[in-house]
Amino acid sequence: MSRAMNFSAGPAALPLSALEQAREELLDFAGSGMSIMEQSHRGKVYEAVHFEAMDLVRKHLEVPADYEILFLQGGATMEFATLPLNLLPKGRVADYVVNGAWGEKAVAEASAAASLGVGEVHVAASADFRCPRQEELALTKGAAYVHVTSNETIHGVQYALPGGVPFPETEAPLVCDMSSDILGRRVDVRRFGVIYAGAQKNIGPSGVTVFVVRKDLVEAGRKDMPGIFQWRAHAEARSLLNTPPTFGIYLVRSTLRWLEAEGGVPAIEARNEAKAAAIYGAIADSGGFYTCPVAEGCRSIMNVVFRLPSPELEAAFVKKAEAARMIGLKGHRVLGGIRASLYNAVEPAWVSTLAGFMKDFATSNG
Amino acid sequence: MSRAMNFSAGPAALPLSALEQAREELLDFAGSGMSIMEQSHRGKVYEAVHFEAMDLVRKHLEVPADYEILFLQGGATMEFATLPLNLLPKGRVADYVVNGAWGEKAVAEASAAASLGVGEVHVAASADFRCPRQEELALTKGAAYVHVTSNETIHGVQYALPGGVPFPETEAPLVCDMSSDILGRRVDVRRFGVIYAGAQKNIGPSGVTVFVVRKDLVEAGRKDMPGIFQWRAHAEARSLLNTPPTFGIYLVRSTLRWLEAEGGVPAIEARNEAKAAAIYGAIADSGGFYTCPVAEGCRSIMNVVFRLPSPELEAAFVKKAEAARMIGLKGHRVLGGIRASLYNAVEPAWVSTLAGFMKDFATSNG
Repeated sequence: MSRAMNFSAGPAALPLSALEQAREELLDFAGSGMSIMEQSHRGKVYEAVHFEAMDLVRKHLEVPADYEILFLQGGATMEFATLPLNLLPKGRVADYVVNGAWGEKAVAEASAAASLGVGEVHVAASADFRCPRQEELALTKGAAYVHVTSNETIHGVQYALPGGVPFPETEAPLVCDMSSDILGRRVDVRRFGVIYAGAQKNIGPSGVTVFVVRKDLVEAGRKDMPGIFQWRAHAEARSLLNTPPTFGIYLVRSTLRWLEAEGGVPAIEARNEAKAAAIYGAIADSGGFYTCPVAEGCRSIMNVVFRLPSPELEAAFVKKAEAARMIGLKGHRVLGGIRASLYNAVEPAWVSTLAGFMKDFATSNG
Repeated sequence: MSRAMNFSAGPAALPLSALEQAREELLDFAGSGMSIMEQSHRGKVYEAVHFEAMDLVRKHLEVPADYEILFLQGGATMEFATLPLNLLPKGRVADYVVNGAWGEKAVAEASAAASLGVGEVHVAASADFRCPRQEELALTKGAAYVHVTSNETIHGVQYALPGGVPFPETEAPLVCDMSSDILGRRVDVRRFGVIYAGAQKNIGPSGVTVFVVRKDLVEAGRKDMPGIFQWRAHAEARSLLNTPPTFGIYLVRSTLRWLEAEGGVPAIEARNEAKAAAIYGAIADSGGFYTCPVAEGCRSIMNVVFRLPSPELEAAFVKKAEAARMIGLKGHRVLGGIRASLYNAVEPAWVSTLAGFMKDFATSNG
């Protein structure tokens, strides 16, 4: 069957070339007579893949030499818990800037770590459908870190867009959950102490977390806890502390090879901006049939959320889109409405088709 | 290239039928026009796979209804840390029975959790190349649990073999790291409070942990910590608390479908015993050229470790075996020597080839 147009919020579309290569070599990787999944993680065949994936993250995210790159497991939610374990000693405070549901979850998990010997969590600002601005932030003097969510997948809110709200300026290290826009646009890694991202939106399948951390923060991390929670232990073992999710890391490698072939992050960023502009354009041109709840300047180029005049029309929209093989457009269960996720591997042609569909649907039902 | 004979300790050989099916449907799962990796974990297509995998674990491991089955991330090493977090409150003691390197790691990680508000870790017995017997166990009255490693992958030591050392009899719930023999033989799940296993030996690729836990222990678990550490939270969310490693779980499903087609655990157990008997037979028949350091009655049917007269001969053995496409026979770096891992998906024909090779090598070099 021909390829569906996948607008899911994650796990999401992967580059066709990465999937085709995986299929081609699934039973025989590099002439080994074995699948990449069957290779020992201590063997040369897998290690070459592991370190190439790491090098590609470093190259395309432009990670400076004084940062470690780790591959971890458990998704962003695991990092919500292990971040304060590593960096928030008792007696200290961490500031959290909340611009949507994932920021709220980060606050909840960090707060719940209090009885594990972790310091205090402070919400420095919270906003709905927009990013809190610098002047709104009640930052704590001497905070251990400031946490921010680069792109809120559910609310469709993104920091640091052209003309939008810049990332917070902070004295403390800035920690960023970049799950849903990592490598979807250029960022200056030096602005951050920690960047982490579940792979399943822009850079691979679920089951791998990409973690970037300044080396002095690795060193400063708590030592009196199990090694599996310590960034230090993972860094020393070069993300081979225990068996890593080898197939997922292999697909991160293949996805980043595709990114490279496409022209790298600058080219993907331009492509992503054009995709988002097409959908926001269809909203703007609909004469009020489609409405976007997100403030101007904070409208995500990765997840475009919008409403129709009624829940019935929204259900009809999703159903008709699915019949036309556009998948994953139903909004998150918390918010309802429609959400089109436009991650790196979402083809511009799919987005054009969706924009055209939106126009036709509004004409027929407006 | 023809399929290699993979004797790796894990990640290990997967059933050919599972790999072939994965290849066949890699770009188009169930007529969806998308890979299984690209499916939303909240959608019906993936959910059917998720719950079928869970049902197959329940069926073939014969898990009673008052036990939960969870799919987690991070491997056994993550459970080494989250086990005491859940079940070992401050002021209580947990007993650990150590029969090899993995039991030692379990002790180290649990001990390191002390400052996270966890109780005391007590080594109830420790033995090299054998399983401690019941009369050797210094069990603690009122222990929170007793931890045991069913099969020691590195040392080639296995509990509860026919004529061997039975699993400990305990008043406290017995917790078992079953990573390297789960579903490789029949076990009575009712003997255990908790069973956990990294998938990458017997039941799938790396990146998935299969976790079986009695419901009253889920309920009894600690609540004042992040949800991602709580079995309760994972159980309530049916292992969809956050994005699971979807492709890995899909392959667990396919591997267990293969297990079913092979006749289930009783048939695989007989096959595994015959495979192990062939290699131990080759050792016994070698006139002392090959020696096994493991005590009789504790010799693993999953990982057969043995020595040759010198490290030079061992290196030559590994090299010559590789040239004959027998892969992964080099012993663990801690122990040296040779290790043949004979997990479920290792074909009997490969084992016959290895046994013949051992005979020839001994004749040529003895």
